[in-house]
Amino acid sequence: MDFTIRAATLEDCKDISRMILELAEHEKVSDQIKITQRDLEQDGFSKNPFFHGIIAEVPEHLKSRDGHTKVGYSLYFYTYSSWKGRAVYMEDLYVMPEFRGKGIGKALMAKVSQLGLAAGCNQLNFTVLNWNKSSLDFYRKQGCWDVTSELGYHCMRCEGDALEHLAQGDL
Amino acid sequence: MDFTIRAATLEDCKDISRMILELAEHEKVSDQIKITQRDLEQDGFSKNPFFHGIIAEVPEHLKSRDGHTKVGYSLYFYTYSSWKGRAVYMEDLYVMPEFRGKGIGKALMAKVSQLGLAAGCNQLNFTVLNWNKSSLDFYRKQGCWDVTSELGYHCMRCEGDALEHLAQGDL
Repeated sequence: MDFTIRAATLEDCKDISRMILELAEHEKVSDQIKITQRDLEQDGFSKNPFFHGIIAEVPEHLKSRDGHTKVGYSLYFYTYSSWKGRAVYMEDLYVMPEFRGKGIGKALMAKVSQLGLAAGCNQLNFTVLNWNKSSLDFYRKQGCWDVTSELGYHCMRCEGDALEHLAQGDL
Repeated sequence: MDFTIRAATLEDCKDISRMILELAEHEKVSDQIKITQRDLEQDGFSKNPFFHGIIAEVPEHLKSRDGHTKVGYSLYFYTYSSWKGRAVYMEDLYVMPEFRGKGIGKALMAKVSQLGLAAGCNQLNFTVLNWNKSSLDFYRKQGCWDVTSELGYHCMRCEGDALEHLAQGDL
């Protein structure tokens, strides 16, 4: 299929915001989304951005049923492992359902990997919901392994009032 | 106990490197450590650093049995959630065994949380080995919750030859 992968710009934030919601609906968590187009513009496209993005785009004549030419995206950022050094983290990887099975997801993931390797990264990291069997199978086929199952790593989080208290050091 | 928490500088990399190894020995993974003092200097203290660090330091008269005054550290960096926005990730939190139980770990974690909140972050994230019961208990007491157990998130990784192949898009 005819598509291109390119760096996301400020003008893509509207479509990224739309696709973040589509992905959340697929993952059954759309009530959790607090991020708006404006947040993405501020947080990804000002000085010292919190993330970077890439976009998968199809030509006008292949646009989606509802008229979209931006049909997939990935958000990523650079992180660090005190064991292995520089790493790249893929926060999202999404392709609109009607454009799946055409190699777009693989191409987006290849691009994030290329960017990571070019920046001197030794690892690509991301998280997957363990009930999302088709995603897990897709990633395993790409040579990825499950750090949680194999080494016992659990993701921990602090937020809201608990984070405020933690910052005050008064728990 | 008399201690201070301050931002890490280039001159702290030797001690951070020593403590990364001590932590890895505790986690039984010291064979996995590829990071040297020089890597830390390059990756944390040049333009566009991959991480930031803070150091816990005691006065000279309270130094450790083997003469160290830098007795704890945390490495952290900023990340992004496409659900919730800006986040801070705590890569390591370590206090030398003979200085535990004196509030140094809590003070380091409070400092990372303060820095995160000041940067507009909504979440503090980190990972814990699920066999490390004392750490899990410590973090739960601070109001943190286990995203892996509660939502089913699994950490996935691609590295080495698999990452090279992924970047070539030829799997």
